Amino acid sequence: MYTQIEHSRRGFSKDEYLARLARAQELMSEAKLGALLLTTEPEVRYFSGFLTRFWESPTRPWFLVVPAEGMPVAVIPEMGAAAFAREFIGEIRTWPSPRPSDEGISLVADTAKSLAGRQGRIGVPMGTESHLRMPLADWGRLAQTLGPGRLAPDAGIMRKLRLVKSEAEIEKIRTACAIGGRSFARLGEIAAPGVPLDQVFRQFQALALEEGADWVAYLAGAAGPAGYSDVISLATEAPLAVGDVLMLDTGIVHDGYYCDFDRNVAIGEPASKIADAHARLVEAVDAGAAVARPGASAADLFQAMAKVLGLQDGGDVGRLGHGLGMQLTEWPSLIPSDRTVLHEGMVLTLEPAIAMGKGRVLVHEENIVIRADGPEFLSPKARAQIPVIGGAA
Amino acid sequence: MYTQIEHSRRGFSKDEYLARLARAQELMSEAKLGALLLTTEPEVRYFSGFLTRFWESPTRPWFLVVPAEGMPVAVIPEMGAAAFAREFIGEIRTWPSPRPSDEGISLVADTAKSLAGRQGRIGVPMGTESHLRMPLADWGRLAQTLGPGRLAPDAGIMRKLRLVKSEAEIEKIRTACAIGGRSFARLGEIAAPGVPLDQVFRQFQALALEEGADWVAYLAGAAGPAGYSDVISLATEAPLAVGDVLMLDTGIVHDGYYCDFDRNVAIGEPASKIADAHARLVEAVDAGAAVARPGASAADLFQAMAKVLGLQDGGDVGRLGHGLGMQLTEWPSLIPSDRTVLHEGMVLTLEPAIAMGKGRVLVHEENIVIRADGPEFLSPKARAQIPVIGGAA
Repeated sequence: MYTQIEHSRRGFSKDEYLARLARAQELMSEAKLGALLLTTEPEVRYFSGFLTRFWESPTRPWFLVVPAEGMPVAVIPEMGAAAFAREFIGEIRTWPSPRPSDEGISLVADTAKSLAGRQGRIGVPMGTESHLRMPLADWGRLAQTLGPGRLAPDAGIMRKLRLVKSEAEIEKIRTACAIGGRSFARLGEIAAPGVPLDQVFRQFQALALEEGADWVAYLAGAAGPAGYSDVISLATEAPLAVGDVLMLDTGIVHDGYYCDFDRNVAIGEPASKIADAHARLVEAVDAGAAVARPGASAADLFQAMAKVLGLQDGGDVGRLGHGLGMQLTEWPSLIPSDRTVLHEGMVLTLEPAIAMGKGRVLVHEENIVIRADGPEFLSPKARAQIPVIGGAA
Repeated sequence: MYTQIEHSRRGFSKDEYLARLARAQELMSEAKLGALLLTTEPEVRYFSGFLTRFWESPTRPWFLVVPAEGMPVAVIPEMGAAAFAREFIGEIRTWPSPRPSDEGISLVADTAKSLAGRQGRIGVPMGTESHLRMPLADWGRLAQTLGPGRLAPDAGIMRKLRLVKSEAEIEKIRTACAIGGRSFARLGEIAAPGVPLDQVFRQFQALALEEGADWVAYLAGAAGPAGYSDVISLATEAPLAVGDVLMLDTGIVHDGYYCDFDRNVAIGEPASKIADAHARLVEAVDAGAAVARPGASAADLFQAMAKVLGLQDGGDVGRLGHGLGMQLTEWPSLIPSDRTVLHEGMVLTLEPAIAMGKGRVLVHEENIVIRADGPEFLSPKARAQIPVIGGAA
């Protein structure tokens, strides 16, 4: 039986969008920006609620202009108007797309100019982890149409806004995590010695859908006798074997919000090296969680975990966690140089890794939200003892 | 039982990559470019075979530099080195990412400079349907580091290369289409009057996985009594009702290649207006297919379908099809202004639409490959008669 997710919990209240807009406009005023010009899926959705998988098609740009005063205006392909009209939006302006000779550029230039005011600067996200989702040549045309000095960095506004999640956002991430948790709890139904890894991948995605996922945006993982050589690979057809550690890392989407946590399971009784490493990873998560409070920094969490892991520096295992929300990974990064101060409502992954020798690694990951008195776990926290699937050899 | 896809058919031969590289270098020579600098998933994968879902994370840029002579060089985050080493690549250069102070910029600048030659221009895709997958601020730093005149448009090279598919690529798209076809053939197992649309969406994705999909990158659709108001929306919880037309449009991925076709089914016996419209859509596909030969243009296919559909211009239903391959949608667009000449090996969708009044529309879509003597259908061609699920009211 398929798990039903309550429809009433879909989307957000109008108040949520009004609050996001008000906060954005406060920051725009501080930064002396007349408008924001947004082009990516999470940016457009953040202010409007517009949620579609159609961003998978690279053909058409979609624009949202958020003025320093007043309601956001969508500048979008005609085909999106009916769907966008159901969202939080002041006005929808469209062009018949595709139209390569003018793919929305004159319309978005007019809109940005009029909304930003005669001389107002138009902020565009340009910093870490941001992208511009339109062709570079069109970006050049837009800059030329607007004239010099009009397009400017967004002063980190989108990052600031999205770093801290509302309770309604946290609830969606919690639901995504719960779906992931129920899926992992059923791993024994699909994984066993002899089952090809690619079949495990496909069946795990089906389990997640059965447990209520809207879709499975990300699944990576691996299996090997003493860890795995990387954590971003697709599955091969190699069958699971007794002695393997199987790791699945998943980004399950519920109403546009992600979970991002993994699970390791031993195929047959694990070697003590594996069992010890898993226990150490859970200990590292505990150490990270122990310092995960408002006022601590991303770097503090890195250092607390690194100490348990015996790391001299982060170079050999990468970052030990990151932000999470409308995307699989968001700011900040848990690395020594990231001094982002934690606030209530930030959602993070704790993702310690242990090098196992011969280029192999073991990685564990949980999802938390920062609360006044410490973290709340959104993912169902793993026990120190690695779970076992399948009998002895 | 889960359908097994043969592992031996995964990836491409070394000869395929050598041929792609040789053709690219021929075009680079014509365009007087010293190198190509690529940043997006399909661009990097086209030359290297590097296939991962990790692009879902926006944190880290990945670069591929293709020189006018010699093998491509990957400039990537350290964490990707083990996976990338299994691909077609001359050299892998890494930096410990995330490192916001220098997110690969100095390394990729050095690499591009040395590979492009002392004065060589470095081509970057900037045209229609292209993106730059790195922060704009870093793009500015890169341009500054390289000096004026070094970064240039790629002269449409990536578009030219990817427009025509090899037989090995076509085989992957054919497999994706077959998986989609088997999934649609089982629609009666999951769709019935009273079943909520969001459950149909989730179960359809699970069916596709069961039939062999690696993942389901795209699913949209709708159900309504006389068509649907848009074709890009997510599902609501509304139950299917007798009298509805249900449309599902899917992008199923097999080994990094997509299908993109849809199916309409009537829930209960269809009104004659619906039945007639469906027959007309299939007739339009036939008309498009009849002219889909080498030497015809994208616009010719539009006009052939538009004639059957009684369209004065394309404005009210958008384009009537597009390219398909490593992405859900690719060049060209079947619109009156797109004069792209068809060649053997181009894979296209034929996607006629009929306005049904009151803002509603009916859309049908098939996938074809251009052959010397006409098109080969890759999707299992729908019959004129709309399929029916569920009994009369």
